[in-house]
Amino acid sequence: MPSYKAPVQDSLFLLNDVFRMDRYGNLPGFEDMSAETLEAILEEGAKLAEEVMHPLNLSGDQEGCTRHADGTVTPPKGFKAAYDAYCQGGWTGLAIDPNYGGQGLPYAVAIVINEFSSASNMALAMYPGLTQGAVAALHTHASDEIKRRYLPKMVEGVWSGTMNLTEPHCGTDLGLLKSKAAPQADGSYKISGQKIFISAGEHDMTENIIHLVLARIDGAPQGVKGISLFVVPKFLVNEDGTVGARNAVSCGSIEHKMGIHGNATCVMNYDGATGWLVGEAHRGLAAMFVMMNEARLGVAVQGLAQSDIAYQNAVIYAKDRLQGRSLTGTKAPEKVADPIIVHPDVRRTLLEIKSFNEAARAFVLWTALKGDVAHKSEDQSERQKADDYMGLMTPVLKGVLTDRGFDNAVKAQQLFGGHGYVEEWGMSQFVRDARIAMIYEGANGIQALDLVGRKLGKDGGRAIMMFFQEVKTFIAENEGNAALKTYLDPLAKSVGHLEQATMWFMANGMSNPDNAGAGSSDYMHLFGLVAMGYMWAMMAKTAQEKLPSANGSQSFYETKLATGRFYVERVLPETSLRLARLSTGSKTMMSLPAEAF
Amino acid sequence: MPSYKAPVQDSLFLLNDVFRMDRYGNLPGFEDMSAETLEAILEEGAKLAEEVMHPLNLSGDQEGCTRHADGTVTPPKGFKAAYDAYCQGGWTGLAIDPNYGGQGLPYAVAIVINEFSSASNMALAMYPGLTQGAVAALHTHASDEIKRRYLPKMVEGVWSGTMNLTEPHCGTDLGLLKSKAAPQADGSYKISGQKIFISAGEHDMTENIIHLVLARIDGAPQGVKGISLFVVPKFLVNEDGTVGARNAVSCGSIEHKMGIHGNATCVMNYDGATGWLVGEAHRGLAAMFVMMNEARLGVAVQGLAQSDIAYQNAVIYAKDRLQGRSLTGTKAPEKVADPIIVHPDVRRTLLEIKSFNEAARAFVLWTALKGDVAHKSEDQSERQKADDYMGLMTPVLKGVLTDRGFDNAVKAQQLFGGHGYVEEWGMSQFVRDARIAMIYEGANGIQALDLVGRKLGKDGGRAIMMFFQEVKTFIAENEGNAALKTYLDPLAKSVGHLEQATMWFMANGMSNPDNAGAGSSDYMHLFGLVAMGYMWAMMAKTAQEKLPSANGSQSFYETKLATGRFYVERVLPETSLRLARLSTGSKTMMSLPAEAF
Repeated sequence: MPSYKAPVQDSLFLLNDVFRMDRYGNLPGFEDMSAETLEAILEEGAKLAEEVMHPLNLSGDQEGCTRHADGTVTPPKGFKAAYDAYCQGGWTGLAIDPNYGGQGLPYAVAIVINEFSSASNMALAMYPGLTQGAVAALHTHASDEIKRRYLPKMVEGVWSGTMNLTEPHCGTDLGLLKSKAAPQADGSYKISGQKIFISAGEHDMTENIIHLVLARIDGAPQGVKGISLFVVPKFLVNEDGTVGARNAVSCGSIEHKMGIHGNATCVMNYDGATGWLVGEAHRGLAAMFVMMNEARLGVAVQGLAQSDIAYQNAVIYAKDRLQGRSLTGTKAPEKVADPIIVHPDVRRTLLEIKSFNEAARAFVLWTALKGDVAHKSEDQSERQKADDYMGLMTPVLKGVLTDRGFDNAVKAQQLFGGHGYVEEWGMSQFVRDARIAMIYEGANGIQALDLVGRKLGKDGGRAIMMFFQEVKTFIAENEGNAALKTYLDPLAKSVGHLEQATMWFMANGMSNPDNAGAGSSDYMHLFGLVAMGYMWAMMAKTAQEKLPSANGSQSFYETKLATGRFYVERVLPETSLRLARLSTGSKTMMSLPAEAF
Repeated sequence: MPSYKAPVQDSLFLLNDVFRMDRYGNLPGFEDMSAETLEAILEEGAKLAEEVMHPLNLSGDQEGCTRHADGTVTPPKGFKAAYDAYCQGGWTGLAIDPNYGGQGLPYAVAIVINEFSSASNMALAMYPGLTQGAVAALHTHASDEIKRRYLPKMVEGVWSGTMNLTEPHCGTDLGLLKSKAAPQADGSYKISGQKIFISAGEHDMTENIIHLVLARIDGAPQGVKGISLFVVPKFLVNEDGTVGARNAVSCGSIEHKMGIHGNATCVMNYDGATGWLVGEAHRGLAAMFVMMNEARLGVAVQGLAQSDIAYQNAVIYAKDRLQGRSLTGTKAPEKVADPIIVHPDVRRTLLEIKSFNEAARAFVLWTALKGDVAHKSEDQSERQKADDYMGLMTPVLKGVLTDRGFDNAVKAQQLFGGHGYVEEWGMSQFVRDARIAMIYEGANGIQALDLVGRKLGKDGGRAIMMFFQEVKTFIAENEGNAALKTYLDPLAKSVGHLEQATMWFMANGMSNPDNAGAGSSDYMHLFGLVAMGYMWAMMAKTAQEKLPSANGSQSFYETKLATGRFYVERVLPETSLRLARLSTGSKTMMSLPAEAF
């Protein structure tokens, strides 16, 4: 049976020591967030993930969800009780506006809890995770009346939320969307159409399910500029907030998926279901994008989370499995063989994962803190800078953390040999669950295009310039620190590659957009490598500062320094390959006619 | 529903045009292998794969194998009939010694058929595939009596074969093997012990199953030098060759695996089963390695095969799926959107797979032809050179083709978006099936160690020196060919990286074997990249020669040249990253205590 231990110490190191959360005390929600309070919250969240959610992970995968003849859906055994515990702990409203029943704590803290939940049981964590995104979209765009009616129950977790975008013929290209909304005399709409791949679309874990649905109002313009967002509850909600009649929305079937079996992925049929407009007519995409961006960060966290739990189990196995002897002579003479962790290739594998996990966690939290600033700062310029970073980093996080997170789950599985291929050991599940994160909320190719085609050039490249400036300033400020040279020199080189790549796009991507498209994925990964290199430089600096006065936790900081060294030696040099690839442009690949493939 | 079209034209191009099989006419089995005969054989094999085996692939995955209470195992519906058709077509004995009922055709031809079979239905193809390996081991090491008794029926496919190495505590490290063999008065042995992960261990598709089992004869030395190989039939075989009493070997359970559900992976219990020694006592590993090496090449082919069928289906989808518009303006104005193959990132993905598949196929056939020479040439020096190459290339092929084959299946799945994650589309199966190929027959980390620790330095590095010499001679001989420069310059650069890496190991790996271990996986991939770069240079040369006189098949050669260009531009530059990584040595990764992971 696989196991899970939430990385509390590592998260505290990042929030307290590296990113100095105490400097954000002027923001609402941060005032009372002392190191002690933070630790207590994370310890509680860890307990829930380890003791309540994780024990249901493997069984949930094996049992899956069941759709009954009447269209109702039952999640795996134990999921409802665990979900209830999650809600009762107040975790659903952690970072949400206290006006609607939330606790108003920092978004960065909620993201830590998201990681713990997703790692311990991704399929289960998705139920409250989607609600969180739906709440964000309603909070930003819905009328007060809608907010008043839906938000408190959603924040409490008594009702859950979904997002309905995809249709059979329409995934990335939402302009093709066909679902219809017919205006009614009372101001409501009748929604008709079919949506597919709807996570948590139907289940019996909450008293109501609040669907956010994209559809076209009769007579709306074609394309994405004719799409509106609607709130469509499974059960209509009475004036007094109680649940009323069943709405005309139902689950037609559930998908047979490669993974996340514990989450009900539904085909949802809307047969004249009653819905209400959220935000302005024909501006539904903007509203949905609030949910989407929130969800993209959540999916990035899923990539990290599966990478981390896969890593943890691989480490346990590598210390336990006796097989062969060290190349440099027997290490455990009292045993029939050495544990496989003596082998350099096993350590290489583990360190590739570990050095990613810790940098990815830093990158996520660094960005989440920008999210707090963007939403809460009173300084307009600070808010704008933070928002620029959020926009720039979201596709990088989503694309890179899920691509690498999946690769890492595969690497961890590999250390188990044949046992990794057998479902009972749980490693296959991590791989199968992690796989979806590369696909949903915008497949990673779309993230790369979003980055290169939209985020890079936005406002004259203001965001990327700010990032270059920040990294270079950090390097310059620490130039005199000889002990940091190991980290800073490779970082400087890699950020140079990113600058060259950016300039290459400016020179070649404008005249021929295919050149940008052809290099988009390499650019996204190049960016991710550099950003995580910067995270390692910051973590190494902090670890060095902490080391002399570390009582009993020297090994934590020493390991941090060695893991960072591995990253800059073995992982970061990939930037030069990414640059070389994208600089070849699109000519060869576009020269072939479609029939030649 | 996924589909499959066997790459007949590509295989003929390689065997006839690039590797000039007509020059091997002096070898037995090649005499009558005219281009027409070869084409007829491949067309027949293609038909079987496409029309008989492939239609059972998805259903076989969904149904899986069933073990009944009495220990019997039923493969998925249709598998037996398809297997019978395979045997009746004579495919089981294609390249096998005519003295035992085989057709004695070139091994390279059998390998082409293996690719078609594995691509069309990997789980089904494994049943005859394992028999093929068992036949090779018996043919090389068993007594005439054993060969006479078992081989003809196995070659015919009426009986199948298995290999039994792994035990619960013992995978890579066969020295830990515990199964026992007690000598009997009549010269037989009583075999006792438990074996796990036994592919095709129990089923009802053949009249008998011939298990090749590693066990220790009572009193044998400890470690790998006390292991012997036994033939243990499911049913004892009478003097007249008919099937007799049931032997004391049974299937205890079948594994719940991530993929290859159609193949029965069994826990096999030997409870004093009667067996006979194959080859010399305590020399069982050498005999099993004949089967193992044959199987490793077969597994390499599985990696290529899954990559190819995943590619084919991704191409169909990319031409069919309408979503968004080309970055350079609408390409299909008559449609609601352009097919996604207009997007550079989709083409990049497809060409990464295609440029691998075609080079991998070449690399496999180039090596298989060495196998023919090694077994059949009358020239001792030719035989030795070919055998050197087989030894050197087998771990590279197994490790690289399965690692990349799996990656490619994942990439192909990615193009399907959410549909790729839904089992009905079949893309998930290619990924799940391909995953095992990185693990079995020696996990890829072991292949890398075999390459670096054993094959590289063998006979003073004779094999690797020969490879360097061959590639450099090719480059030198074609230096004047300006049209080939595109391919030769990057090849020269990459072979230089491989030489540097080899020298780095000589300088640093002898003094500290951990340095070799730490870089072994990077070295293996570096080697694979160079070998496939060499394949592309040879294919490009042939394509250029053929192009002027190509009647109606210009596009085949032009596509070949463009695909090779993509490989040298975008894929081959990875050699420099691999060299950079391995040159960092083992210090950082070995410095950490085990507790630090």
